[in-house]
Amino acid sequence: MSSTDDLRALRRELHRHPEPAWREFYTTARIVDELETRPLDALYVGPEVLGGERNVVPDDADLDEWLTRAREAGAREDVLDRLSGGYTGALAVLERGDGPTVGLRVDIDALPITEADTDDHQPARDGFRSENEGFMHACGHDAHTTIGIGVIDAILDSDFQGTLKIFFQPAEEVIAGGEPVVAGGHLDDVDYLLAVHVGLDHPSGEVVAGIDGFLAVNHLSIEFHGESSHAGNHPEQGRNANLALATAVGNLHAIPRHDDGATRVNAGVIEGGTASNIVAEEAHLEAEVRGETTELMEYMTDHAERIVRAAGEMHACEVDVESVASAPSAASDPGLADVVGAVASNVDGVDTVLPADALGGSEDATFLMKHVQERGGKAAYVCIGTDHPTGHHTPRFDVDEDSIRIGIETLTGSIERIAAERP
Amino acid sequence: MSSTDDLRALRRELHRHPEPAWREFYTTARIVDELETRPLDALYVGPEVLGGERNVVPDDADLDEWLTRAREAGAREDVLDRLSGGYTGALAVLERGDGPTVGLRVDIDALPITEADTDDHQPARDGFRSENEGFMHACGHDAHTTIGIGVIDAILDSDFQGTLKIFFQPAEEVIAGGEPVVAGGHLDDVDYLLAVHVGLDHPSGEVVAGIDGFLAVNHLSIEFHGESSHAGNHPEQGRNANLALATAVGNLHAIPRHDDGATRVNAGVIEGGTASNIVAEEAHLEAEVRGETTELMEYMTDHAERIVRAAGEMHACEVDVESVASAPSAASDPGLADVVGAVASNVDGVDTVLPADALGGSEDATFLMKHVQERGGKAAYVCIGTDHPTGHHTPRFDVDEDSIRIGIETLTGSIERIAAERP
Amino acid sequence: MSSTDDLRALRRELHRHPEPAWREFYTTARIVDELETRPLDALYVGPEVLGGERNVVPDDADLDEWLTRAREAGAREDVLDRLSGGYTGALAVLERGDGPTVGLRVDIDALPITEADTDDHQPARDGFRSENEGFMHACGHDAHTTIGIGVIDAILDSDFQGTLKIFFQPAEEVIAGGEPVVAGGHLDDVDYLLAVHVGLDHPSGEVVAGIDGFLAVNHLSIEFHGESSHAGNHPEQGRNANLALATAVGNLHAIPRHDDGATRVNAGVIEGGTASNIVAEEAHLEAEVRGETTELMEYMTDHAERIVRAAGEMHACEVDVESVASAPSAASDPGLADVVGAVASNVDGVDTVLPADALGGSEDATFLMKHVQERGGKAAYVCIGTDHPTGHHTPRFDVDEDSIRIGIETLTGSIERIAAERP
Amino acid sequence: MSSTDDLRALRRELHRHPEPAWREFYTTARIVDELETRPLDALYVGPEVLGGERNVVPDDADLDEWLTRAREAGAREDVLDRLSGGYTGALAVLERGDGPTVGLRVDIDALPITEADTDDHQPARDGFRSENEGFMHACGHDAHTTIGIGVIDAILDSDFQGTLKIFFQPAEEVIAGGEPVVAGGHLDDVDYLLAVHVGLDHPSGEVVAGIDGFLAVNHLSIEFHGESSHAGNHPEQGRNANLALATAVGNLHAIPRHDDGATRVNAGVIEGGTASNIVAEEAHLEAEVRGETTELMEYMTDHAERIVRAAGEMHACEVDVESVASAPSAASDPGLADVVGAVASNVDGVDTVLPADALGGSEDATFLMKHVQERGGKAAYVCIGTDHPTGHHTPRFDVDEDSIRIGIETLTGSIERIAAERP
Repeated sequence: MSSTDDLRALRRELHRHPEPAWREFYTTARIVDELETRPLDALYVGPEVLGGERNVVPDDADLDEWLTRAREAGAREDVLDRLSGGYTGALAVLERGDGPTVGLRVDIDALPITEADTDDHQPARDGFRSENEGFMHACGHDAHTTIGIGVIDAILDSDFQGTLKIFFQPAEEVIAGGEPVVAGGHLDDVDYLLAVHVGLDHPSGEVVAGIDGFLAVNHLSIEFHGESSHAGNHPEQGRNANLALATAVGNLHAIPRHDDGATRVNAGVIEGGTASNIVAEEAHLEAEVRGETTELMEYMTDHAERIVRAAGEMHACEVDVESVASAPSAASDPGLADVVGAVASNVDGVDTVLPADALGGSEDATFLMKHVQERGGKAAYVCIGTDHPTGHHTPRFDVDEDSIRIGIETLTGSIERIAAERP
Repeated sequence: MSSTDDLRALRRELHRHPEPAWREFYTTARIVDELETRPLDALYVGPEVLGGERNVVPDDADLDEWLTRAREAGAREDVLDRLSGGYTGALAVLERGDGPTVGLRVDIDALPITEADTDDHQPARDGFRSENEGFMHACGHDAHTTIGIGVIDAILDSDFQGTLKIFFQPAEEVIAGGEPVVAGGHLDDVDYLLAVHVGLDHPSGEVVAGIDGFLAVNHLSIEFHGESSHAGNHPEQGRNANLALATAVGNLHAIPRHDDGATRVNAGVIEGGTASNIVAEEAHLEAEVRGETTELMEYMTDHAERIVRAAGEMHACEVDVESVASAPSAASDPGLADVVGAVASNVDGVDTVLPADALGGSEDATFLMKHVQERGGKAAYVCIGTDHPTGHHTPRFDVDEDSIRIGIETLTGSIERIAAERP
Repeated sequence: MSSTDDLRALRRELHRHPEPAWREFYTTARIVDELETRPLDALYVGPEVLGGERNVVPDDADLDEWLTRAREAGAREDVLDRLSGGYTGALAVLERGDGPTVGLRVDIDALPITEADTDDHQPARDGFRSENEGFMHACGHDAHTTIGIGVIDAILDSDFQGTLKIFFQPAEEVIAGGEPVVAGGHLDDVDYLLAVHVGLDHPSGEVVAGIDGFLAVNHLSIEFHGESSHAGNHPEQGRNANLALATAVGNLHAIPRHDDGATRVNAGVIEGGTASNIVAEEAHLEAEVRGETTELMEYMTDHAERIVRAAGEMHACEVDVESVASAPSAASDPGLADVVGAVASNVDGVDTVLPADALGGSEDATFLMKHVQERGGKAAYVCIGTDHPTGHHTPRFDVDEDSIRIGIETLTGSIERIAAERP
Repeated sequence: MSSTDDLRALRRELHRHPEPAWREFYTTARIVDELETRPLDALYVGPEVLGGERNVVPDDADLDEWLTRAREAGAREDVLDRLSGGYTGALAVLERGDGPTVGLRVDIDALPITEADTDDHQPARDGFRSENEGFMHACGHDAHTTIGIGVIDAILDSDFQGTLKIFFQPAEEVIAGGEPVVAGGHLDDVDYLLAVHVGLDHPSGEVVAGIDGFLAVNHLSIEFHGESSHAGNHPEQGRNANLALATAVGNLHAIPRHDDGATRVNAGVIEGGTASNIVAEEAHLEAEVRGETTELMEYMTDHAERIVRAAGEMHACEVDVESVASAPSAASDPGLADVVGAVASNVDGVDTVLPADALGGSEDATFLMKHVQERGGKAAYVCIGTDHPTGHHTPRFDVDEDSIRIGIETLTGSIERIAAERP
């Protein structure tokens, strides 16, 4: 069993080195460091875990920059060599006698958010603030990774009978890692799958046994192609890509709400034009839509595509729309969640167990859950409450580190009992 | 007198190395190369030419990148050393007996436009396309610089009596170079000032003796500060800077037209947000407004500021508005233009001389013109027509190289006669 | 017990004479006609039912027009006299021995929608289409009124012991009738309150015993005051109220969705300007916001007010915002709904009884329900399913007339059993 | 010669009875009253003056309302009978010996503007404010009509030799009267045409002999057809015509300015939806575009049409666009203007004569001018300056009544001299 101090140190080290999707080089190298010291039956790294096509892969210059950064931060060269092309992540396998195969999925990537550096933010105050300026573990994946390591140690100390597979999945934030993990094939023999997330507005001491209400999501990448002209001499000769984009952004957010359930839309990234005296020729928009069901997500997608195309036409611009990443809706199996809930209620520090709750967000864990469920297995998405001062995806997000221990104990106990009871 | 072949070679070399405002390192070094081979009475470089505060100066990393690029392209190290901090440009002085001081201003910077690489674009076809990807001499300043060099040689061959000052001015495109040149003091004793531009929709063989109708211009830099949140989990906690910007862009372009004369507005550069699943916390807009008079420009500025502030307020964002650069309106002196027109009509290849025409654009040459005029001198802005396949500030802009010769002959003849006649 | 033929005839007569809020003159006169032939213990008309201030009252000219229309359609003059000032509606009271006081609320007003006149719309085909062009019973209140009359007859035939009060409420569609009914005082002694609605996307044969999920709603009336000018000669002198309104409309629909539950927004009515060659001086907007809870409605209201004020400011217009009508959220009492559900399951033609379902809309019945509940009573909102070819508030909306009988039997049985069992 | 008092009385009477396009019933009747007391050679009324198709004609109910109003104000029944269908206006013909045919065109209609009723507005203070609430002579056509009458008297007192035709033209403000007057044929033999306007930002004492720079104009009537739905229950089923219109309005005003000259756009009238709780099914927009040349007007029209169609598409609405009225650009003949200028400089009270000035607005007099010019005649549009406290088309617009006399003397003198000199 790993010590609380060790786990905290690991989490803080990861927190100092946040890496965005497909660039989790340092993170993967550190995971491999840890895993190699444990008596595993198999350890797969990067391309050995992933299959099929990948989306949202950065260009080589971007990958190189992060490789260099990882190298300078002390990542092992031999591991980095295996991650070439941005094939990040790892899979640890432990075989312990006869029993079902249980999977645990933790995600490892960070976000393009600049971390707060004020004294009311613990990582800043205590010296483990992000060293990769502009990037941050603002969603707790540093804690998830740590929980994954901790569970291995705890299982090694337990009576678990069966096979355990722990997936350290990259690229969750851009909804790009889930499908390649499925395509990699290592889930095909998984009978029971657990995924874990900390926080989600649940305080320390609260556990949700089976999260539901994943919003299906679709990330859209949109290009407006206009024509540049001199904004002073010949404004009439331009076809203004910025104006087309601006019209699209306003109208995207105005897609009618739907009576069948929750929907979302966000024009998250905009970029256009080259100089204030040139009518913008090119503009780029990264947007996402979500829906409480896959149908609602498709309703939003249809509207979004119609809006951006019409916005282009309005300003005589060509428009390219690409769906760069999407994830379906999914649901936790109540029977599996019952086991998790029963275990959690006996974990020290847990005072409230909710059988279910809606996420109100999206997750590409749904790809893994659906794959297991479609092959006759069961899946549950577990939330370990943690006090977080501000919302996920904000500069002062932080976790209560004791929730790491609670997560490890809840998951380890659940894995053990699932293998024994086969619910 | 420099040969037509030499001038063409110089123009093409400059065309291959376009450099944006305050980063004209290679360009300045090449100008100095040329000037040092001529029998000048004085040669000022970079900080020796400029005074006062400068606007729109890039940060050190940006400057360093362009310094490196200039160095790799073969720029002289000793000149680069003198341009430290982005103090670019040069001034050549020639004293030839008793007579008035005549100034000639040419501008030397390029634009952030990606040059066409198709065969219908001569620089691409004939191998002198931009080597600085994403940047381009799309406004003919490579020709202007070449004309400046050519005029020196021609004056050396002439009967000119007086003092000639040729200003190789940086940073015209961002309206930032003019004021520092004025503040540098070298214009204080200039009795007559000519400035030159090629093209402006006038074909080869046409010369405009005195351009009028400069639009006063104001460049605005606007920041929208909102608050990020998770776009799926808590859209209501965000304050959406992208949405504020989009509302501003649409409404900026809708500022009412004005009965007193021409106005312009352009939301040229937009940039906001970090990821599609995060409500954008920060968004940036670079816009410009223009007016046929300084009053009209101020009318546009007032409206623009009110609009961007209200757009921020609408989406609960703070807004910072900064005027980063501006230029007044100005007019050519008819008497001076008369001399230019008379000379031009005798230049080989000139078939049409227009006494005046409206620019319909902006120029920070107006700072220089107004300074000379306010001190009792006279100024004219001369346009040398040139066939250009597409408009200024577009990827396929190009010049008819014979217009360089016409420009040199027109300006040299004018300078000679101005000194003689003191109009 | 009234015959099915009589009820259908009454419903169709009401359907031919749809009247909007506070102008239900013909409708009220017909209700009084019917009620006067029954052995009631009390009959209150118009001002005798209503108290306090009323909102959204039309001006005198509008009221007179509808009075004239009612008179010409044959409404009784003596009843019209009692409705002066647009105090419409009625209350029937029946006292039948010892027992609790049970209230039933039906609403009677129509909508400003032009009814379809194609053969696929039964009222058009069978000759009972609206005779008040531009207005229509597009929400089934004609059926509700008929159900109210039918329940009286059925109760008169029953063993009901107690007091029955049937409220024929005006002005539901503009959320204006509920509060005055409460203020009128006749609800103060009501122990149990039922309200009824047909349809709501539930088909014939389905009954929902207790509707929940009423959206709290707020109707906003917004005026933009700008300044007119000649659009050709002096566009710059105008302050464009239409442009302010247009900016507001787009941004209102873009208020961020909320993770706590459903929200709604609609810019339903716009009107501005006087001529195409005059910059619009005045523009008017009628909008509404809704929320699954009263808090969510207030969130929407706050955003809406900020947006319209900023839109005015953006175009230098003054803005007046008035909340003309609002209704809170409310919930049916499960115990009361249980009784309704049990009764409904034995009604001929009912094949499905849902204990509860979310309305996803708003209703000013919530004022009545909350009033009864706050005084210790119980309330339930019953939905009688009916096949409707198109959605509520559309030109081809229609009801399955057999649902009128189902409604009468369900409500009569429920009222009888509630009085007996006092749940 | 009519007395100054009589003319002022007539102008004020007309001012009290402003009538919009095609509804100038009282006005025409009063003109006929006046003309019948003069020894004319011919008097044509309404349909006898107009030919071809007319645009922007109100419906019968609207015409009837104004007919009733005219009748109640004391208009002669026999004249009203001749104006049936809204064929308004008149033509007076005076034949005085041998000489050319000179035409004078005055326009007679008013605007849908509510006149100011404060004491700083002379018509309100002195009791001749508009009696047709919501309508106003806010462009001085009451003065034009009075000038037309005054010129007849003055010509009768003069040595004029030739034929004089005075056209009292209806429906100028909606650009609808000019074409029918041309089609009526009475201009076919006109050798010289003068048109007159007061004010136009020129003060009392100033005369512009030949106005130029008429903006070509196009009035567009646009319908957005969406689909209604219940805004609370099923917002997703609506296709929101108000939202489409709002998007169009914002983007119309953002059509790029044009380097070739002045352009204008105005979304003058908007109207949509029926209730705040119904998604708007229909929305209506009346807009206009203008250009300094007919080409620029067409540039604006093309953009406007593309924008409104794309706005409809964006919100899944059908769009109908109709050009309801348009007028070309035109120019005054310098030779004719020279005569007017020479005469004006000798008129008492005239201190400044400008040979030409740009209107910066539109006028359907351009149809008449072009027709005369195309047939070999000459035309000039004369501006009689008048102090006006606020701009044309605003609630406090008023004229300096002495400018009526100046107008009569300038035009009479010009007509006399034109006939004599045949410039």
